Amino acid sequence: MLDQIKANPSQYRVLTGDRPTGPLHLGHLFGTLQNRVRLQELGVELFVIVADYQVLTDRDVADRLGETVDELLLDYLAVGIDPERATVFTHSAVPALNQLLLPFLSLVTVPELQRNPTVKDEIAHSRQHAVSGLMFTYPVHQAADILFCKGNLVPVGRDQLPHVEVTRLVARRFNERYGPVFPTPNALLSSAPVLLGTDGTKMSKSRHNAIAISSTADETARLLKSARTDADPVVTYDPVARPAVSSLVLLGSLCLGIPPEEFAASLAPGAAALKRTVTEAVNEFLAPMRARRAAYAADLTYVRKILRVGNERANAIAEDTLAEVRTAMGMAY
Amino acid sequence: MLDQIKANPSQYRVLTGDRPTGPLHLGHLFGTLQNRVRLQELGVELFVIVADYQVLTDRDVADRLGETVDELLLDYLAVGIDPERATVFTHSAVPALNQLLLPFLSLVTVPELQRNPTVKDEIAHSRQHAVSGLMFTYPVHQAADILFCKGNLVPVGRDQLPHVEVTRLVARRFNERYGPVFPTPNALLSSAPVLLGTDGTKMSKSRHNAIAISSTADETARLLKSARTDADPVVTYDPVARPAVSSLVLLGSLCLGIPPEEFAASLAPGAAALKRTVTEAVNEFLAPMRARRAAYAADLTYVRKILRVGNERANAIAEDTLAEVRTAMGMAY
Repeated sequence: MLDQIKANPSQYRVLTGDRPTGPLHLGHLFGTLQNRVRLQELGVELFVIVADYQVLTDRDVADRLGETVDELLLDYLAVGIDPERATVFTHSAVPALNQLLLPFLSLVTVPELQRNPTVKDEIAHSRQHAVSGLMFTYPVHQAADILFCKGNLVPVGRDQLPHVEVTRLVARRFNERYGPVFPTPNALLSSAPVLLGTDGTKMSKSRHNAIAISSTADETARLLKSARTDADPVVTYDPVARPAVSSLVLLGSLCLGIPPEEFAASLAPGAAALKRTVTEAVNEFLAPMRARRAAYAADLTYVRKILRVGNERANAIAEDTLAEVRTAMGMAY
Repeated sequence: MLDQIKANPSQYRVLTGDRPTGPLHLGHLFGTLQNRVRLQELGVELFVIVADYQVLTDRDVADRLGETVDELLLDYLAVGIDPERATVFTHSAVPALNQLLLPFLSLVTVPELQRNPTVKDEIAHSRQHAVSGLMFTYPVHQAADILFCKGNLVPVGRDQLPHVEVTRLVARRFNERYGPVFPTPNALLSSAPVLLGTDGTKMSKSRHNAIAISSTADETARLLKSARTDADPVVTYDPVARPAVSSLVLLGSLCLGIPPEEFAASLAPGAAALKRTVTEAVNEFLAPMRARRAAYAADLTYVRKILRVGNERANAIAEDTLAEVRTAMGMAY
């Protein structure tokens, strides 16, 4: 896949994005953000959606959404998403994209929505008493996100594969019924290994075990100092037997750009040395991103203008696609 | 309710509409269309939605939608909906209205959608193997139809009451959570008696037992000539014991504007006299509507312009409401 992309980058439109739920961290960075920037650098057209309608059920987030969106934009700019080339936009600002939800919902049955494993999982983990209609229809809304710009490449983690399948289904069914309007997008599976949090469990903002891109060097040092290790002083990379230590090794190696085994072998024995070396590697790696973030944070007016321009561009594209959809459906009265 | 409306017509905004599934008939006319025109004449602001997204699962209709929409517009104009005062528009042309579906879906749970009796009924009567996501979320889409223009009065038949309840629920929950944006609309129950088809069963286009507003005087005469009656030559109005004859009596009396018992008593014995008199009454009643319809049908360019103007007006209102909604939700970045 990557070879095809390199050979013909202008043939690809990538749709990615995030729910604005809080600071992006190193798990996001190595899991997806770096990959987006790499695609951008290859010359692929990048669309980044801030999925603000998909956080409404999380009241804590929804109540200070403006701030959370600002922070997310700063994280994007910090990691190297280039507003001159990428289109960054919010769900709530693109009505013609959201309208696509309606014809797309007509192409999917309720049992198909119920079977979606990611939705099932989100229902199981939801803090709500009952899942909302919005969460239930979320994979179809995501089809609208991807197809409004005729995105044909969707970088995802393995857990997001069923969503891409819904998008492919919607695109195929629409084209069969109304004529060829949409591409059938392909998933681009992330090859990044999974980083654990500093406590050796799943990295998550709510567990306070994640190093945010926006954190300071001191905060990073403090968090890594308290990181979980084990009793064996010799550092090795063995994710199965030694998950906590191995995740620290992986983190250091990712920042240094060397294989984790090589990084582990280079270390003096003892958890203290490991933590110190990883802290230095992380802080050095993040330094240019933090500098870029600070520069943008000093000019929020400009950052918000980037979003406005992105929203305008997304609207222009969505309106064109919707016009095409209405014509194909015989609704251009 | 009607007294309140008469006292203060400018306080009310009415949202009504139809799925563009085929010609409107006398059941629609006496059941809802006359009522709309009456409200319009009282000075209430009338919004009439052509629910074109709600016919997609009916392939026969969806394949010739443009034509069906033209015919529906002609029926509206024929019965006296005044394009100078009412706003007639289509779902597919108002993205900002459709976007409201998303925040509204976040306010309703899947079990609440599953419990809706009208949706249950439509699922049971659906010709589809499984109900579509669009039909499942239909009551919430209807909440967007009503609330985008801050409609506060919804004329409905009894079977539509649960939909209005969903709209009231959405409005209340939105206002509680985000601040007062929407009215809590009231249902205006139709007091019209139910007209049966000419075969004595439920009036329905697919049963060929309905007199379309667009039919000719000859077609009307033919259909009524073949109408079902019974063996008793004395005409009486007794809907329980003599449903077929009584429905003909009711039809004649509605066209003449007299009570059905009085109309029945005025008739000579025999089915032939009944049918002849009802045919005359219907054709006389429909004559001015048919004349108006023919005049508009001769100028479809003008009719389509009425729709375009309605769509523009609906868009302007929907965009204002959506802007208000986004501000209330903290999404005006």
